[in-house]
Amino acid sequence: MQTDKKLADIAGLVKSELQQSQSITHDPGRRSMLTRSLAVAGTAAVSTGLASASTELPIPESNKSLGRAIPEATYGMPSKYEAHVQRRRTDVFVNKQNFSDWSMTPLHQQQGTITPNGLIFERHHAGIPDIDPEQHRFAIHGLVEQPLVFSMSDLMKYPSVTRFHFMECSGNGLTDWLEVKSKTVQQTHGLLSCAQWTGVPVSTLLDEAGVLPTAKWALAEGGDGAAHARSIPIEKLLDDALLVYASNGEMLRPENGYPLRMFTPGWEGNTSVKWLRRLKLGEEPWHLRSETARYTDPMPEGKWRQFSFEMEAKSVITTPSGGMNIKPGPVEIMGFAWSGNGKISNVDVSMDGGRNWQEAQLEEPVLDKCLARFRYRWNWDGNPVQIASRAVDSTGYVQPTVEDLKQTRAITGFVQHHNGIFPWSINEAGEVNNAIA
Amino acid sequence: MQTDKKLADIAGLVKSELQQSQSITHDPGRRSMLTRSLAVAGTAAVSTGLASASTELPIPESNKSLGRAIPEATYGMPSKYEAHVQRRRTDVFVNKQNFSDWSMTPLHQQQGTITPNGLIFERHHAGIPDIDPEQHRFAIHGLVEQPLVFSMSDLMKYPSVTRFHFMECSGNGLTDWLEVKSKTVQQTHGLLSCAQWTGVPVSTLLDEAGVLPTAKWALAEGGDGAAHARSIPIEKLLDDALLVYASNGEMLRPENGYPLRMFTPGWEGNTSVKWLRRLKLGEEPWHLRSETARYTDPMPEGKWRQFSFEMEAKSVITTPSGGMNIKPGPVEIMGFAWSGNGKISNVDVSMDGGRNWQEAQLEEPVLDKCLARFRYRWNWDGNPVQIASRAVDSTGYVQPTVEDLKQTRAITGFVQHHNGIFPWSINEAGEVNNAIA
Repeated sequence: MQTDKKLADIAGLVKSELQQSQSITHDPGRRSMLTRSLAVAGTAAVSTGLASASTELPIPESNKSLGRAIPEATYGMPSKYEAHVQRRRTDVFVNKQNFSDWSMTPLHQQQGTITPNGLIFERHHAGIPDIDPEQHRFAIHGLVEQPLVFSMSDLMKYPSVTRFHFMECSGNGLTDWLEVKSKTVQQTHGLLSCAQWTGVPVSTLLDEAGVLPTAKWALAEGGDGAAHARSIPIEKLLDDALLVYASNGEMLRPENGYPLRMFTPGWEGNTSVKWLRRLKLGEEPWHLRSETARYTDPMPEGKWRQFSFEMEAKSVITTPSGGMNIKPGPVEIMGFAWSGNGKISNVDVSMDGGRNWQEAQLEEPVLDKCLARFRYRWNWDGNPVQIASRAVDSTGYVQPTVEDLKQTRAITGFVQHHNGIFPWSINEAGEVNNAIA
Repeated sequence: MQTDKKLADIAGLVKSELQQSQSITHDPGRRSMLTRSLAVAGTAAVSTGLASASTELPIPESNKSLGRAIPEATYGMPSKYEAHVQRRRTDVFVNKQNFSDWSMTPLHQQQGTITPNGLIFERHHAGIPDIDPEQHRFAIHGLVEQPLVFSMSDLMKYPSVTRFHFMECSGNGLTDWLEVKSKTVQQTHGLLSCAQWTGVPVSTLLDEAGVLPTAKWALAEGGDGAAHARSIPIEKLLDDALLVYASNGEMLRPENGYPLRMFTPGWEGNTSVKWLRRLKLGEEPWHLRSETARYTDPMPEGKWRQFSFEMEAKSVITTPSGGMNIKPGPVEIMGFAWSGNGKISNVDVSMDGGRNWQEAQLEEPVLDKCLARFRYRWNWDGNPVQIASRAVDSTGYVQPTVEDLKQTRAITGFVQHHNGIFPWSINEAGEVNNAIA
């Protein structure tokens, strides 16, 4: 009873106090925001549609009743009000089927830099196997002193390392080179995720097996129905490649390779072979279908580029992005930048179709081969514009335009490795649209 | 047909090649591990139970069939083989009820340093409300120039920051001071989680409202049935406190405060008020029940300490920990260390009940007010031992023993702020047990 009275007292406080005071409903168009915009950008203040009315803060129902009971044991799920935040398949291809497809991360709804495990993008070649970790075995064989077979419990006894890295499919953006096919940033850039990965350095186990001097490549093969496999240079395996079993603090999800996957930081996602069951060391690459017919890039004069592993520096504005609607006044531009070759050193944004560029702010910590978040405070005057971002990485590489890329490659239809500058147009109604072409 | 043949070829390869070669089943007791142990610790090699047999790697069923189809839109879940990884309620109190309780993070199953959102610990006073973000309002009032009311969409337009921090309940460990009550590290230390938090600095909005010079404290109140509230010094709010709406890349889960919570880095969890609906600025603390009858610490001579906000440096070994079983030979000791007052500067481990201490290895990056993972490679000789860890933070503070804490505080039963060194005993059978008393 004492508690109930106290509760009523406290709840009553807000209502009466707010009624007495001259409170206002608020949005970030007001004082400090404008002051900052003026201080930073020197632009003129704009009307912000600030509501002048409003009076009290009603006591919500949630303050007057018990909530849901706490389960004895549980694994939590998002609020029912967030049910729209999901991975989604492409809406570009009409001939899609269910066992070999993409499922994309909603980048426009991602906060911070970590992609939650439930939203990490997927790319499968033969559906999602449900592998029993107690039955799973991983082998190292071929050009080694001693072939080895590991169970998961063996592997997990080795010293692990934990690192933040992005992962991107080489096909990210392939639908939108020369014409507008996709509406949202989830569809144009959503084969991109970022997580804290935990696993055993491949070098530890190669050291254990003893690499023969003739070994230059390794075949990494998955335990899925497609037996998806890639040839990987031994240098990468000895450098920073990991045998990953966990992401963001828990075991991998089935669709992301449970119980074990290769992880090749900064390289195209298909080399981070999921459901990994063997590494075979050899002298030459295997020239599998996945590295002849697929995962290659057309070049001028009918040639094709093989083994284009590194994901080069890239960025995209996620807020505002395709399908959103903005109002004149202060707009917080936000997006992601990343590079498979190092750290992001800076990001510029353009509000005039790429003629002029301003430096955006990067949020710390900026990590190696990891998503970096940038932001730029802008005042939109209500006139039609085209906005875009441009990343520069620690090697000095500058994200190119599609026109730049056309100078060195044959951009014909749905080709891989699209890291071109990506523009969004904003019309007079404030509607944001894909402006790649 | 071509693809099927290729698949069969590749799958066949492993079987035949492994049959030909002299492969061995493997665990990390072998060469490089022992070499490293010898090199690092200079201890004698021990028998490791290495299997010498085994021959081939059978082709698993998952390589011979299609997996699950990819859903059109989805939010992923853990593998069915990980269903045992759950938050769990305490098993110490028999009089527990369903609306005011704890639900603890399985630290012994956590990989890396990030706690996945589904496993972040919970502490409720009146169950879990399901708040509609469109209806939610947050007010700043009291000793301000201009009271303000924000909707969630207003708030989320402000420049956000994203930071990695641990969160710990002040009651973490309160069942296990003077006698063994809990079996696992989930039960002894699981009111501890770590995430990437995203939100708006409180200072931004206080600047907007205009803090009057007389304002020294603020009442932070939640929208739950208990209207849980705490008085927080204005200095903390202007320093690093955040109005958080997201963790690990997505909106907060209902049980963690959706759609908005206070976040006070390094301070006891109950000050990070969930479902936050107002901040009222005043001259003095409110001396609520949550800061008189609760969340206070008994001291000698019948006194009680109020407002003990900071979570002082602490650590615990999570592998091996209570309920586990180890074998003689190399053991990878792992655990977490954290401090509410800064970074962890080092962690020592003892394998002889605290007489001798060796420095453990810290995994980078070690961040401010964030979980740090430590490891230490040990060779267990099979004799009964007591193991423990001891954290030192960037202020020079050394994690105390329970005996140390008894010198300055009245440790009587279930009291808060237990950051004492926590020992596990290992008997001749390799069983690991809570050895706090």
